[in-house]
Amino acid sequence: MYKIGIDLGGTNIKIGIIDGKYEIISFSTSKTEDRYNPDAVIEQIYNNADRLLKKNGLSLSDIAGVGLGCPGIIDPESGTVIYSNNFNWLNFSVKEKLTNLFGLPVQIENDANCAVLGEAAAGGAKGCKNIVLLTLGTGVGSGIIVDGKLLSGSGFGGVAGHMTVELGGRPCSCGKLGCLEAYTSATALISETVKQIEMHPDSLLAKLCKNDPQKVDGKLAFVAAKNGDPYAEKVIEEYIDALAHGTASLINLFRPEKVLISGGVCNEGAALIIPLNRKIQKYCFAGKYITAPAVEICRLKNTAGVIGAASLIKIEGEKNEIQSRI
Amino acid sequence: MYKIGIDLGGTNIKIGIIDGKYEIISFSTSKTEDRYNPDAVIEQIYNNADRLLKKNGLSLSDIAGVGLGCPGIIDPESGTVIYSNNFNWLNFSVKEKLTNLFGLPVQIENDANCAVLGEAAAGGAKGCKNIVLLTLGTGVGSGIIVDGKLLSGSGFGGVAGHMTVELGGRPCSCGKLGCLEAYTSATALISETVKQIEMHPDSLLAKLCKNDPQKVDGKLAFVAAKNGDPYAEKVIEEYIDALAHGTASLINLFRPEKVLISGGVCNEGAALIIPLNRKIQKYCFAGKYITAPAVEICRLKNTAGVIGAASLIKIEGEKNEIQSRI
Repeated sequence: MYKIGIDLGGTNIKIGIIDGKYEIISFSTSKTEDRYNPDAVIEQIYNNADRLLKKNGLSLSDIAGVGLGCPGIIDPESGTVIYSNNFNWLNFSVKEKLTNLFGLPVQIENDANCAVLGEAAAGGAKGCKNIVLLTLGTGVGSGIIVDGKLLSGSGFGGVAGHMTVELGGRPCSCGKLGCLEAYTSATALISETVKQIEMHPDSLLAKLCKNDPQKVDGKLAFVAAKNGDPYAEKVIEEYIDALAHGTASLINLFRPEKVLISGGVCNEGAALIIPLNRKIQKYCFAGKYITAPAVEICRLKNTAGVIGAASLIKIEGEKNEIQSRI
Repeated sequence: MYKIGIDLGGTNIKIGIIDGKYEIISFSTSKTEDRYNPDAVIEQIYNNADRLLKKNGLSLSDIAGVGLGCPGIIDPESGTVIYSNNFNWLNFSVKEKLTNLFGLPVQIENDANCAVLGEAAAGGAKGCKNIVLLTLGTGVGSGIIVDGKLLSGSGFGGVAGHMTVELGGRPCSCGKLGCLEAYTSATALISETVKQIEMHPDSLLAKLCKNDPQKVDGKLAFVAAKNGDPYAEKVIEEYIDALAHGTASLINLFRPEKVLISGGVCNEGAALIIPLNRKIQKYCFAGKYITAPAVEICRLKNTAGVIGAASLIKIEGEKNEIQSRI
């Protein structure tokens, strides 16, 4: 039996057919067409999955169930998206809708929770019992595993992106000031880069994007910093510093075997990871006496979410190292 | 059978004889005489415990074991204080020393962890499976229970006091800048009060302590604020605000059934708790849609630590709702 794993993002819908060993048999990705219309999104998911099955000569009878990861606050028990600011969904019964369409067992979970389940099942956190994963994208998502079980508390826990890292600091998309997300998301990195370009129109940073803020992405400051631009260096230094502070706070709390980070900014590799780990060792409590766990880049890249979503579907007799919420 | 619970602090050593229902049979407290000398502290503990037993007509043969809570980073497995900045102890084998003296099973744990175990066993968190406890004293300690088990991660986790709440913020006793402790400990409250007195020597705040910084305690700003002093109001507003931010970050992560706070500042009652809970609801992620758990004052006051320390000793057949680290 196979499982279907779906990673629903504001930009793309990724779907994977996954085998019993968490290997991807087939994978598709397509633009999310009408994200503010939940029924249209559900239909798009079903049609894409149906196409992927047919392409592989499979039918729904070959599938044990469908797992879906979705940004926002999810109640896996009722199968409801309680609140997703990216989609503008409120109390939407995703599980019921998908169950009606697929006629199969369906489970839903937060997308970053799916990513950490995926990395634990088949990626960089295999064999770990305590893991913190951060996704640095439009926002900052997090999936946390404590003692072999997805952290949720009495419900909806595991949210690291909205920890305050600066009292009265930058405004965050959530409405609060000073959240980790407002300093360490790709959005924050881009917006700080744009600020420096506007302040220094003759800098290398400005030249590289022809003074066009629209052309700024998360890579630009890294490229300019490598070429010695001091304004870009400042952007990168502050970005990595805030990320190190947030990560060190999470290490103090969870002391995981590993911290994993994902998102486009991870393509920078050593330029990100080496200074980040150095700062974290300094910022962790008792860092002089205890070695901080390593921060690593997610191994499964853009497939962690679909593998983790598929892992929500339990097959009797199957061994699950990590317990999901349901 | 009884158990001995010990709460070792930089200022006081508290000892309790505890029965099978986590009731205190007898309790003693004495000044910690020579805290930088670990052997002297161990001897003082033994002598005090011995006196307390004799006073109650008991001997060591009536005792199932000795539990000890101690500030700092503790390894309960080896029974070692890895690092305690309050005591200046490094890699001190407390368990071995106490076992030799008492000739009984001994367990040790961090003091705030003991406090949360105590509140879970017999106090305000009875029946809860997810609890965050903060002790607001000289420093800020924390004990966190996730899914019925003391949080530790792969070791030494559960440290909330050194989360960064302000990038480049106030210097903390740990050497880092901007830790929660530097804003929400009693020490921080006193030091901010002193600053306002020095800046405003004609204020009510200054008059109440006769312009003597030595007379400033954690109550002064609350008293002056109640009497309309604007500088005291500013101190209290900022203190509660930082505490609300830190607590909301912890709620986002752990979604506990309850947050408990302890320490002298809790004597302020409603003047602390009402604005704190109001701010937390605002600062929690999705606070518009999900009710934040209540922050309450610890019920066991200064005996939570000794009850929790005693609960580290397991008696066969005894029911333990909450799992300690060992």
